[in-house]
Amino acid sequence: MIRIFIASKGDRAGLARLFEAELPEAEVITDQAALGAAPCPYIVVGRPDPGTIASVPGVEVVLSLNAGVEHLLASGEVPEGMPIVRMVDDGLAEGMTEWVLAQVFAWHRNILHYLRVQPRAEWVPEKEKLARDRVVTVLGAGALGGRAAETLAALGFETRVWSRSGRDIKGCRAFGAEDLGAAVTGAEVLVNLLPLTAETRDLIDAALLTRLAKGALFVNGARGAHVVEADLIAALDEGRLSCAALDVFRTEPLPGESPLWHHPRILVSPHVAAPTHPGPAVAEMAANIRLHQAGEPMRNTVDRAAGY
Amino acid sequence: MIRIFIASKGDRAGLARLFEAELPEAEVITDQAALGAAPCPYIVVGRPDPGTIASVPGVEVVLSLNAGVEHLLASGEVPEGMPIVRMVDDGLAEGMTEWVLAQVFAWHRNILHYLRVQPRAEWVPEKEKLARDRVVTVLGAGALGGRAAETLAALGFETRVWSRSGRDIKGCRAFGAEDLGAAVTGAEVLVNLLPLTAETRDLIDAALLTRLAKGALFVNGARGAHVVEADLIAALDEGRLSCAALDVFRTEPLPGESPLWHHPRILVSPHVAAPTHPGPAVAEMAANIRLHQAGEPMRNTVDRAAGY
Repeated sequence: MIRIFIASKGDRAGLARLFEAELPEAEVITDQAALGAAPCPYIVVGRPDPGTIASVPGVEVVLSLNAGVEHLLASGEVPEGMPIVRMVDDGLAEGMTEWVLAQVFAWHRNILHYLRVQPRAEWVPEKEKLARDRVVTVLGAGALGGRAAETLAALGFETRVWSRSGRDIKGCRAFGAEDLGAAVTGAEVLVNLLPLTAETRDLIDAALLTRLAKGALFVNGARGAHVVEADLIAALDEGRLSCAALDVFRTEPLPGESPLWHHPRILVSPHVAAPTHPGPAVAEMAANIRLHQAGEPMRNTVDRAAGY
Repeated sequence: MIRIFIASKGDRAGLARLFEAELPEAEVITDQAALGAAPCPYIVVGRPDPGTIASVPGVEVVLSLNAGVEHLLASGEVPEGMPIVRMVDDGLAEGMTEWVLAQVFAWHRNILHYLRVQPRAEWVPEKEKLARDRVVTVLGAGALGGRAAETLAALGFETRVWSRSGRDIKGCRAFGAEDLGAAVTGAEVLVNLLPLTAETRDLIDAALLTRLAKGALFVNGARGAHVVEADLIAALDEGRLSCAALDVFRTEPLPGESPLWHHPRILVSPHVAAPTHPGPAVAEMAANIRLHQAGEPMRNTVDRAAGY
């Protein structure tokens, strides 16, 4: 008998229905009181309360609903040797790509401009460019950056992609570690989708922003710590950048007193670019449960030494 | 001798230079006074003043700078039997598709919502959907509608396309003339890219809007006269629609006193969705002139019975 305990916050019943559709043979438990003493090898968590994991009899695998698991590792709630599976599902890359497209196209086609001037009730067409006449640089060529870059290229943007490995992405010009300067020089749009490491922390600073085309757009869907905030604000204030669309911040939730909330050229969204979507997430977890049941290695298990 | 009279508003000299590069053997006239009595078989128009076409000696073909020619047909300025060529160039379809993507993605990913609440400096994530979880219906399966629909489908939206012919578009579900109701029922996004004809005038009315999903987005990149404005405003006021992105209006420029400028759920842009890009437009017209000179059928001639 496959037993799965859904211990996450939010809509447990909705996840249970999806699990029951994927794994009709499983017993899915959403109420801790209904766990009983029978072994329940699988627990689904977001940020579990202390003691939750230890309370599940016979638990073998922790299935995280999030891609980032640093909080689970730091909590000490998962015993040494117990596998943690992080969420890497199609929905994540799809959601991020769609969020990036929303920011890039809204800027590309002057939506925010027209919205701002609309109360004046004046008919003043701006000059429009085609995507093929704009250079976009994507930082990061992984599951997120690679997909976003490939999609932007397919939609006509002249797309460059920079990564440590210089990985090729379909339709894009690839740049390797040493060529960051060339990758960003003259770009009208810079999209950051890098992982946060010691090498990429504070990568986006005045020196880098100065290389972009005048009036460029900066889009950050990765981590706040990639960006030197003071340099970003200076670039916006001086008009070197025309807009920054930020979904991630050094401190989240972004504190009410942050100047980013009130900057006229900054769009703040509350870390919504790539949320976990229940359908694809449950499909991915169910696939891993089937692998585990078959005694095969699961996908996207966390390497505790690496931290992800 | 090929003579071409450029009778459009705007930069006639710029168009003339492009024509001279494409057709070095042609005489290009930009000043009515310089027409003289020699036959001038080609006239390039936008919305010509009354009498302009009749004033050109030996005129044989009307080359429109616009995709929509309903004003030319209605004006009675083009004699029966004289071919009208409408503008269908790559830049037009690209520009329109990009404008549609900008409207659809900005709404899809709540950009306007976050922009509106940002001054409150509150961290309140909205529930996000994936494109694959939204139904989009595109009205029109021509050069503009077909391309927009195919692109929306490629980006993951469950895309329906409705046209008189029921033409198949890659990745989309096609609906024919009789199936308009089925095509729009439950759609979260309605994109209008129809030609304006007697059949499509006032097509978008209360009965049609009521069939959409509650809180849907309406995007109009075609013609203002497709829409019963009072019905649209009522649907927005009642919350049946959450937003309308309008680039075209019954009267253009949209008069300063129009309530559309000040409606909180309407985005007005000043007919910028698919501007004619002079380079590709002149290349297309020159190609048609060469065909006409060779006695071959021209591309994109208007079918007067159909109205486009």
